[in-house]
Amino acid sequence: MSFTRISTLCRSAVKKTIAANRVEFPFGYNSYSTKLPYSFSPLCHKRNSSTSSSVQDKLVIFDTTLRDGEQSPGVTLTVDEKVEIARHLSNLGVDVIEAGFPIASQGDFEAVTRIAKEIGPLMTGREKIGKPLRIAGLARATEKDIKRCYDAVSHAPFHRIHTFLATSDIHLKYKLQISREECIKRATKAVELAKSLCEDVEFSPEDSGRSDQDFLCSILGEVIKAGATTLNIPDTVGYNTPEEYGALIKYLVENTPGGDKVIWSTHCHNDLGLATANTLSGITNGARQVEVTINGIGERAGNTSLEEVVMTIQTHPKSYPVYHTINTPLIYRTSSLVSSLSGMVVQPNKAIVGTNAFLHESGIHQDGVLKHKQTYEIIRPEDVGVFNVNLVLGKLSGRNAFRSRITDLGYGNLSDAETQKAFESFKTLADTKKRITDHDLLALISDQVSKGSTPESQRFQLQSLQVVSGVHDMSTATIKLFDSLKNNELIDAAIGKSGPIMAVFGAIQRLVQRKIRLLQYEVRAVSEGMDALGKVSLKVTEDTDSSSTDSEFLTGHIIDGEVKPKTDSKGQPKLTKSTYSGHGTDVDIILASAKAYVNAINRLYEEEIKEVSGSRSLPAERFVNI
Amino acid sequence: MSFTRISTLCRSAVKKTIAANRVEFPFGYNSYSTKLPYSFSPLCHKRNSSTSSSVQDKLVIFDTTLRDGEQSPGVTLTVDEKVEIARHLSNLGVDVIEAGFPIASQGDFEAVTRIAKEIGPLMTGREKIGKPLRIAGLARATEKDIKRCYDAVSHAPFHRIHTFLATSDIHLKYKLQISREECIKRATKAVELAKSLCEDVEFSPEDSGRSDQDFLCSILGEVIKAGATTLNIPDTVGYNTPEEYGALIKYLVENTPGGDKVIWSTHCHNDLGLATANTLSGITNGARQVEVTINGIGERAGNTSLEEVVMTIQTHPKSYPVYHTINTPLIYRTSSLVSSLSGMVVQPNKAIVGTNAFLHESGIHQDGVLKHKQTYEIIRPEDVGVFNVNLVLGKLSGRNAFRSRITDLGYGNLSDAETQKAFESFKTLADTKKRITDHDLLALISDQVSKGSTPESQRFQLQSLQVVSGVHDMSTATIKLFDSLKNNELIDAAIGKSGPIMAVFGAIQRLVQRKIRLLQYEVRAVSEGMDALGKVSLKVTEDTDSSSTDSEFLTGHIIDGEVKPKTDSKGQPKLTKSTYSGHGTDVDIILASAKAYVNAINRLYEEEIKEVSGSRSLPAERFVNI
Repeated sequence: MSFTRISTLCRSAVKKTIAANRVEFPFGYNSYSTKLPYSFSPLCHKRNSSTSSSVQDKLVIFDTTLRDGEQSPGVTLTVDEKVEIARHLSNLGVDVIEAGFPIASQGDFEAVTRIAKEIGPLMTGREKIGKPLRIAGLARATEKDIKRCYDAVSHAPFHRIHTFLATSDIHLKYKLQISREECIKRATKAVELAKSLCEDVEFSPEDSGRSDQDFLCSILGEVIKAGATTLNIPDTVGYNTPEEYGALIKYLVENTPGGDKVIWSTHCHNDLGLATANTLSGITNGARQVEVTINGIGERAGNTSLEEVVMTIQTHPKSYPVYHTINTPLIYRTSSLVSSLSGMVVQPNKAIVGTNAFLHESGIHQDGVLKHKQTYEIIRPEDVGVFNVNLVLGKLSGRNAFRSRITDLGYGNLSDAETQKAFESFKTLADTKKRITDHDLLALISDQVSKGSTPESQRFQLQSLQVVSGVHDMSTATIKLFDSLKNNELIDAAIGKSGPIMAVFGAIQRLVQRKIRLLQYEVRAVSEGMDALGKVSLKVTEDTDSSSTDSEFLTGHIIDGEVKPKTDSKGQPKLTKSTYSGHGTDVDIILASAKAYVNAINRLYEEEIKEVSGSRSLPAERFVNI
Repeated sequence: MSFTRISTLCRSAVKKTIAANRVEFPFGYNSYSTKLPYSFSPLCHKRNSSTSSSVQDKLVIFDTTLRDGEQSPGVTLTVDEKVEIARHLSNLGVDVIEAGFPIASQGDFEAVTRIAKEIGPLMTGREKIGKPLRIAGLARATEKDIKRCYDAVSHAPFHRIHTFLATSDIHLKYKLQISREECIKRATKAVELAKSLCEDVEFSPEDSGRSDQDFLCSILGEVIKAGATTLNIPDTVGYNTPEEYGALIKYLVENTPGGDKVIWSTHCHNDLGLATANTLSGITNGARQVEVTINGIGERAGNTSLEEVVMTIQTHPKSYPVYHTINTPLIYRTSSLVSSLSGMVVQPNKAIVGTNAFLHESGIHQDGVLKHKQTYEIIRPEDVGVFNVNLVLGKLSGRNAFRSRITDLGYGNLSDAETQKAFESFKTLADTKKRITDHDLLALISDQVSKGSTPESQRFQLQSLQVVSGVHDMSTATIKLFDSLKNNELIDAAIGKSGPIMAVFGAIQRLVQRKIRLLQYEVRAVSEGMDALGKVSLKVTEDTDSSSTDSEFLTGHIIDGEVKPKTDSKGQPKLTKSTYSGHGTDVDIILASAKAYVNAINRLYEEEIKEVSGSRSLPAERFVNI
């Protein structure tokens, strides 16, 4: 399918379609574009729909997996992992990504900067779109935040500053403790500053779903005057119905002074399971940007799923006045990568990307499928790139076959050294497993991404492991680690009252001389069969309370029906996010568990080094709620 | 909150509210009700909304977890498990459950019969509702199906026959190969037969989303004349948008002759993530029954989530013209039970019941929560019964404390012997784990439900296990099983090229002398800490192809982008569902894995005995698509 861009239609089509079609795409020309190998193209995209005669607007897909998605409880992505996800989002054809919240920590700043530099200019897979990904960063409505954000995103050819301020009375009163007037003043000042740095500025009124609508129109009118080009309307608490949210968007589009000069954006949370429907209702009522995440990850019940919105528009070309430019056959692999690196499981009955989404259990149903495919399937598995689980590679497959397969899977960018490493893991696996599928390959590669590339991220290396365990006995584990920082081999043993995993983790704790608290542990077979790869995902935190045992340490949890964050030594709530995730893959799940535990500990050390060297700020203010 | 039932309002309120308010609840008086300890109450429920002055209709919650939910790929519930789930649904305050598809197999027939007998009369937790659960069964539009269904459901004081026939041209042409006239004839004949047996008859036109609307009005008008009391409109393939589905319901309600005499029902699938929104749109447009499942399980991307629909109505009392009588504080425990027994994981970012749904990661956000709870929370965790993960029981807790806690968790019905067994597992756990939470208790109890209560279901018992394993060595497992059928002890060992789990499973296969294929394997820590209980869920199938090794056996899967069911020896697609799930819980995950494997093998044996004895029919026609 090729898209016709008819910028001149921008104005002439206005009156024929709904009010919200008053769009001039505000992607600004900036200092980078002249140096680039792609031409600057008109930014107002309209096309003739292939299935109806009406002119459709381009829907801007703004992915916030790396910002809002990364705020999911327990998700902690390393910089390498974020870059890898950004690369996949670029290939997927996403228009804008929110790469992080640069002020929050040195780690966030580094991640946004690296993504801007490394992913910002990429054109792979974006030939039809004609330009690379736009990199956005989040900033509160303060000078420090906005400048820090600009310093990170400005490395990208196309970039955006996204600033926000709460506007609901409940927030103004209880959280910010400011008046409405002060709120408008802060917002316009912030947008003016952002605009002085960067053509493309997005503003979000936090908790707009519960804000006074006329006050919203006033403040949004002011930020448009100040230079905002996109206005994002978050349903922060996720409690709007589609009718309510659509009515809000319609009201704002129609009643905000200058509302026809900007792009309106949706940002819906899924607390009632309505995020996708709310987002679609926003589009129907005038929104031309949607903020979404892969697999719908995000705080609490998460955000709107990119895949659900895109595939609904795709399957209902006449129902929505927009088109998208997502490469849908890359949806499934992007989903797998995000699930694997974030440790956020996708349930089998998840729409589009759940493992059951295209499996038909029923006899009658299968009969229908066989007789006439259209009877039941509307999206074909290949439309979203659901993998081939058939035989792909085996023991005798050479390096070229391997490289070609991983390139097909979206890892054509690996360096020779990385490819060699992945090839070695593949050969080792092929010794015990006859048929190696795409799922196996992706597990091996994501494992490698998770290991990290810096010396710090690989300080401890698992060298050997031995376990003896049984029903009536204590389990015993002997572990050999190599400490690459001190260049010496460590070996010790421990018992495990509750089985071999406890023994293994206990022995590793002894070797690294740290008290570590296990928060979450999960094993999953990557494919069928007893020789399947087991993928272990776990989360740990340092056990700082010397009086506590592993099982007594409480973190931010629901206690007596209330959310009680963990407290520091003074009994003050600890708002820091000091959990570390670890991943390990092996056919032997004990070994996979040991690898995952060592991986998590290496991450803990890496963060500590950054903190000591001052390159990592305290993460207390890392998170926001839009 | 108490509900006023004003049956006389049924007619008078009609014109004041939307067209669909033309409801007379058709719950029929039947031969059982006179013998029961509760009075027969008028079935048209209306009440004055506490938040608005409009009169609201009772929304009938029809749960199909045990029928449509059980059709999820890989889900196989035992009769005991189905009865336990039905008991929870009764306590939850569900109005109607579809307990199964009695013609499909002897197992389905038994399950529906037992549920009708054991759960049908229960009034526990239903005092406000004033009557017990109505038990429905599914039947194709044939005499044999309908009679078999009646034989199973009629044991319940309140029961229903639910019959269906496809009505879309695509189905008539390709699947049924009949004309529209023949379709009407079959449907009316079926409903007439059902009505002659049972007052309460539901009819579903399969694939109504793609059926000609005027033809739908004709056929539905005829089935109303034939005696149908509920008309259910399935969006079989899950591809409707909320607008489309709502418009369909509205059209049918307004244009079907006699449409004002029946209850209209929604049945939405979640292929695009829109099931909840579609269901709500159905309510807005006149539906007064919703077909839902716990956790939204069901074929492909699943069904509509009970919890999402109920909590949306609950949080938006003014937006929908209905009220519900669900005991919402039981939602979370019902969700946990269904997830645990079905093996269908609930993703952390699932609305309402995901583990993250009430967890706030963000610093700013937590700050907001602390300052003023209403800033972010609309549903409180206690509203849906999210567990207390705090210390509940320990080593010194006695039998009474234990019994009282499991009663609170919804297991007050356990017999003394069952309680004693559960108490013993609790004491064993308390030896290694200091603090035992509600999650731990539920894992222990669901483990016991899964084990089954018949001698066949416990033929093999794990007695002892020993494992030696390491990085460079082959793993070795020695297993001792007790065969209670033959009353002898079996002991053998096996090696595992891919680690201790393979060794353990290999040794068990040797002892039971069967070739078993592992389809799925998953471990999850029930709570935090290294001493947490590990819950293993796995699925196996018998490896009947003697030429295949464990890793070569393929089941119904997506191959080259197409769904290809597994084939039998003649190359014909096998439509049978011959997978067996197994669950095992232990602090030692190797031991938990062995328990789960033995559990699955016991189920396989139990089914075989039923098949040999003729008490189990071939399951080829077990599943339908509404």
